[in-house]
Amino acid sequence: MAKAPVLTPRAEDFPRWYQDIVNKAELADNGPVRGTMVIRPYGYGLWERMQQEMDARIKETGTQNAYFPLLIPRSYLTREAEHVEGFAPELAVVTHGGGKELEEPAVVRPTSETIINEYFSKWIQSYRDLPLLINQWANVVRWELRPRLFLRTSEFLWQEGHTAHATYEEARDFAARIHRDVYGDFLRNVLATDFMSGRKTARERFAGAINTLTLESMMGDGKALQMVTSHELGQNFARAFHTRYLAKDGRQELVWQTSWGSTTRMIGALVMTHGDDDGLRVPPRLAPIQVVVLAIKGDETVLATVRETGDRLRAAGLRVHVDDRTGIPFGRRAVDWELKGVPVRVEIGPRDLEHGTVMLSRRIPGGKEPVPVDALAGMLPGILEEDQALLLEQSRERRESRTADVSTFEEAVEAATAGCWARIPWAVLGEDGEAGLAEHAVTVRCLVAEDGSVPDADDAPGNVAVVARAY
Amino acid sequence: MAKAPVLTPRAEDFPRWYQDIVNKAELADNGPVRGTMVIRPYGYGLWERMQQEMDARIKETGTQNAYFPLLIPRSYLTREAEHVEGFAPELAVVTHGGGKELEEPAVVRPTSETIINEYFSKWIQSYRDLPLLINQWANVVRWELRPRLFLRTSEFLWQEGHTAHATYEEARDFAARIHRDVYGDFLRNVLATDFMSGRKTARERFAGAINTLTLESMMGDGKALQMVTSHELGQNFARAFHTRYLAKDGRQELVWQTSWGSTTRMIGALVMTHGDDDGLRVPPRLAPIQVVVLAIKGDETVLATVRETGDRLRAAGLRVHVDDRTGIPFGRRAVDWELKGVPVRVEIGPRDLEHGTVMLSRRIPGGKEPVPVDALAGMLPGILEEDQALLLEQSRERRESRTADVSTFEEAVEAATAGCWARIPWAVLGEDGEAGLAEHAVTVRCLVAEDGSVPDADDAPGNVAVVARAY
Repeated sequence: MAKAPVLTPRAEDFPRWYQDIVNKAELADNGPVRGTMVIRPYGYGLWERMQQEMDARIKETGTQNAYFPLLIPRSYLTREAEHVEGFAPELAVVTHGGGKELEEPAVVRPTSETIINEYFSKWIQSYRDLPLLINQWANVVRWELRPRLFLRTSEFLWQEGHTAHATYEEARDFAARIHRDVYGDFLRNVLATDFMSGRKTARERFAGAINTLTLESMMGDGKALQMVTSHELGQNFARAFHTRYLAKDGRQELVWQTSWGSTTRMIGALVMTHGDDDGLRVPPRLAPIQVVVLAIKGDETVLATVRETGDRLRAAGLRVHVDDRTGIPFGRRAVDWELKGVPVRVEIGPRDLEHGTVMLSRRIPGGKEPVPVDALAGMLPGILEEDQALLLEQSRERRESRTADVSTFEEAVEAATAGCWARIPWAVLGEDGEAGLAEHAVTVRCLVAEDGSVPDADDAPGNVAVVARAY
Repeated sequence: MAKAPVLTPRAEDFPRWYQDIVNKAELADNGPVRGTMVIRPYGYGLWERMQQEMDARIKETGTQNAYFPLLIPRSYLTREAEHVEGFAPELAVVTHGGGKELEEPAVVRPTSETIINEYFSKWIQSYRDLPLLINQWANVVRWELRPRLFLRTSEFLWQEGHTAHATYEEARDFAARIHRDVYGDFLRNVLATDFMSGRKTARERFAGAINTLTLESMMGDGKALQMVTSHELGQNFARAFHTRYLAKDGRQELVWQTSWGSTTRMIGALVMTHGDDDGLRVPPRLAPIQVVVLAIKGDETVLATVRETGDRLRAAGLRVHVDDRTGIPFGRRAVDWELKGVPVRVEIGPRDLEHGTVMLSRRIPGGKEPVPVDALAGMLPGILEEDQALLLEQSRERRESRTADVSTFEEAVEAATAGCWARIPWAVLGEDGEAGLAEHAVTVRCLVAEDGSVPDADDAPGNVAVVARAY
């Protein structure tokens, strides 16, 4: 008996399939103010796991968490010229507070470089205060005209790191370290997501940065998604906010800075990277629920075994949920866990117990098999690691099979509009070619060196531009 | 040799002493927009520990985290009459977004009952969907005319729980469970803070609630601070937002609701409960740093021992920081850790190593003694538990010694204005007496039953009003 599809198939309408998963897996709803979103408990559980994994990696670098105000005096934004130009069209402005019109309107932070520099300039006196390594977990608002849940929302959650260093080299190396050891490591080893690692062209750089490092991943429809970025800010904000330190040689010097961020957008990327026509597939190392133990029917022995199995798997260090809601038909619950992408279902009914087995159902490669109940705890860690590796492998294969080396502007456009990525020498494309891509809704996602590493400069010899349509 | 005081002594000027600690222990700074604050890394570390401990207790009750938008259509606030009256004077209003004036202004959430009910009314269909237990960690804005760091700020961080239940009894019992098992347990067993547990009078209730449970603690100057509150909302918001469910008997019923919150205000309470003239004293179970291991001077053997000791104590499960900044004078660093209230300092210098000992310095009871380096890891857990118990005991003693049973309005005012708490029969004080207290800047903090439990009603026989000045 063929199942009626719960979701619009990807091949039929990819954007609608995405919307269906977000809705039916209960990840998020649209908020009442245009472009805002409500993150539902299962979606928020994914974010909590992302936070835990990222936060540990961020702290590993010696960075400390802090919290800066939501509301920023509008005048701060205007101090760094490129920055205000980049963000002005997206600002939400508070004009009234406590029943009165404010003397100076405040903007809801779109990012915190300006307000953080105001404090860095107070806290930093001498070279002994450097490096200053700060991160915050916060909400930001950037007004969005074409909103899409997780991918483009007027309010989103993120972490933003902000650091100050004594020299250009230290700042550059720290941005590269975050790019590699925090973001790269998290994407590859937790999110099971392959990426291209490169630098943004001048056109695509963060407003106020001298260099932006990016990790770009290929979604299920071949489009690119910018996963995370790390910026070298040079001395631009330090100049605007007089963020100076007393150097060892007694001179006052401007600090060199970085900033870097990752957002709830990664939840959208997770859906579009690993989802299939049956729903989400969550990488086991990320999954808030790695194993769900389901009671098929409600007899006492079954329920007791289900709970006991849950406890035993929890004791083995797994993240386990017990579904004993036998008032709801089993089939409906099974489809729901499939939609939510829980890697392993352990299904237990009276017939299984007669045989001393349970049914092990794997979401990621698919397939079911009976397994002796006593063997479960021993088998599952290996199975979950296999699943984790398979997702990364599928993500890598997709990118490789859908990336073409091309040598002309026309070929690059053709590949990108067909849902592929094109690699074209930057010397051939150039800034004029890049401007021309915009007419086809295609962009340069990043520049990479010939050997795949991150180039030191936009015009380093041998640089290749990775060109694609993007979210 | 007497130390020059780093802080204004409490007896001289308590508010200034508080401000000195917040500043010198690097907990927080004033933000540029009136009443906002920057929470510095050490202050934020305290908040992260509070979040971890509270979040675990909240999840224990079956509550799940989610996230609702920062911006709420202004019209939502007006749907519940008491609610809008309570919050209207404190709102921050966004009138412009994305370069245009908004059709309907949005308010920055002062709390989320309204927007959450909008979604509860979509998510809840039948009795099977109840109870619905949601919590969020978020920032809120309530415009503050007389701001004070942590205690009253225009933006603060908090958790807000929101639940929906099928019956009045279930909602009442859940609010009581949060009050006791989450908040009461956290305050007593982690924050080492004694409290009175009671209900608010009608005058002091949350705007839109039918009952508010509160925990009130005595600060170092004898004033009260409302630590946390848990509200029974009855069906007020359900009525305003049509939050209905299909009952087992086939009828449509309004849900019964609760909400409950705790905020960064607790950091201010921590300072004013346990701080002394040398700085903060952080209860060990809360402390982000329980033990700091300090190198007195920078010879190689000392530094190696310091790091090795740090590793060994970490391996014993303690939260440890190693201070090997030997470029900064030892005395300055010791004072700094004292200000920050780290419970135990382990100080290691060349002379100590000659004797195979280290200096163990205890912040909470005070005092120093040499200890064999090998004995440290075995001794510290017991010492920290002793310190934890001592802080709770001191907090309890303060409240008991400064609470008076009185029988007239005049005596109550006299006690409260002298920095004490007064217990007066509610039948004697009454609502008129309560109104009269306001002229003396005194309030009823809560009503308690004769046996110390939380009364079921304001006018239950034997109710006692606890009366005090408050933050």
